[in-house]
Amino acid sequence: MEFDQSASQTLQDIMRWRRDVRHFQRTPLNDADLEALRASIDLAPSVGNARPWRIFRVQSAGLRQQVRDEFERCNTNAATSYALSERSAYMKLKLQGLDQAPEHFAVFTVTDPEEGRRLGRRTMPETLRQSTAMALHCMWLMARSRNIGMGMVSILDPNRVEVIFDVPEGWEFAAYLCVGYPETKDDTPLLHRSGWQGNSESRWTDV
Amino acid sequence: MEFDQSASQTLQDIMRWRRDVRHFQRTPLNDADLEALRASIDLAPSVGNARPWRIFRVQSAGLRQQVRDEFERCNTNAATSYALSERSAYMKLKLQGLDQAPEHFAVFTVTDPEEGRRLGRRTMPETLRQSTAMALHCMWLMARSRNIGMGMVSILDPNRVEVIFDVPEGWEFAAYLCVGYPETKDDTPLLHRSGWQGNSESRWTDV
Repeated sequence: MEFDQSASQTLQDIMRWRRDVRHFQRTPLNDADLEALRASIDLAPSVGNARPWRIFRVQSAGLRQQVRDEFERCNTNAATSYALSERSAYMKLKLQGLDQAPEHFAVFTVTDPEEGRRLGRRTMPETLRQSTAMALHCMWLMARSRNIGMGMVSILDPNRVEVIFDVPEGWEFAAYLCVGYPETKDDTPLLHRSGWQGNSESRWTDV
Repeated sequence: MEFDQSASQTLQDIMRWRRDVRHFQRTPLNDADLEALRASIDLAPSVGNARPWRIFRVQSAGLRQQVRDEFERCNTNAATSYALSERSAYMKLKLQGLDQAPEHFAVFTVTDPEEGRRLGRRTMPETLRQSTAMALHCMWLMARSRNIGMGMVSILDPNRVEVIFDVPEGWEFAAYLCVGYPETKDDTPLLHRSGWQGNSESRWTDV
């Protein structure tokens, strides 16, 4: 398949508008949207074609509440780790959309899957986690291309999340995702806009 | 920005044709292509907007040779780790395009960057590595949208690569990339086609 220039421009637009969304409408996603998100994961790269991601679609109110509580606990700890001068700026940031997002996903990585027959990960087990991260990124971009927002919640203790979802030995928590239609449209990262952290430029170094 | 259905289809096509490329033409990339790859990294998600990736564009023949030698060493070790019955299948796989690819990149993650002010990574330092993985994935997709192939080489000892590139304390090796125009066009993963590992399906589990 040969792509023309417009494909590259479309991809760039999707990447630019991806955003980590924390402000969601409560409108549910339809089945076609959900299937498109799921199918995008099938197209993610993975080391040795191992596809080490394991995903729960979380609809249980009880499980959602446990994650919500765990976020609250970790976020309070994080806030108190800042000096007073920074703490109020931190506490003003909206860092998750757990209460509004119609869809929640809990994502894990299998750290020693049968699939792939250990190819490519012997010296770099990290490649399994990279595979899961890229699968999440597929889902993120696919969501945006359908005007759906996704936010990644990482202010959680991985061990506690593994207990909440009672995952098998060897599964490692990767991310908790909130997905839904965004409340606002914005191509500037919230942390940039709020002054927390501006965009440092990515240049490569010639060697 | 509102995307129409064709954007989603274009993204799906790019993801489907992404591939881990190991067969390259020697044709050099032009400056516009290189700049498009670099610019795509600027659009990657990162925890706390920390942008923890650090990238070397490797043109030095000496450095390339050291990486080549390190791959050889690790690949021989990997081959001997398989039982005889699997070893010959492993050794038939082409796992890198180091000799032909016109562009090489060595990618690292800063494990404690100033940027981001520790936001979102206190309980999950792994989010920094996830950010780098997603940046690589941006580059991978952007390359493909311009009909350029990328391959990720992971059969390397991270500590040795850190020594080869003499990186500062706290930089962690993430990936070595080969980039160039592909020799062949194929939307089926090599490991699938060769029978090493077929595609297991990604379904999520409702909880």
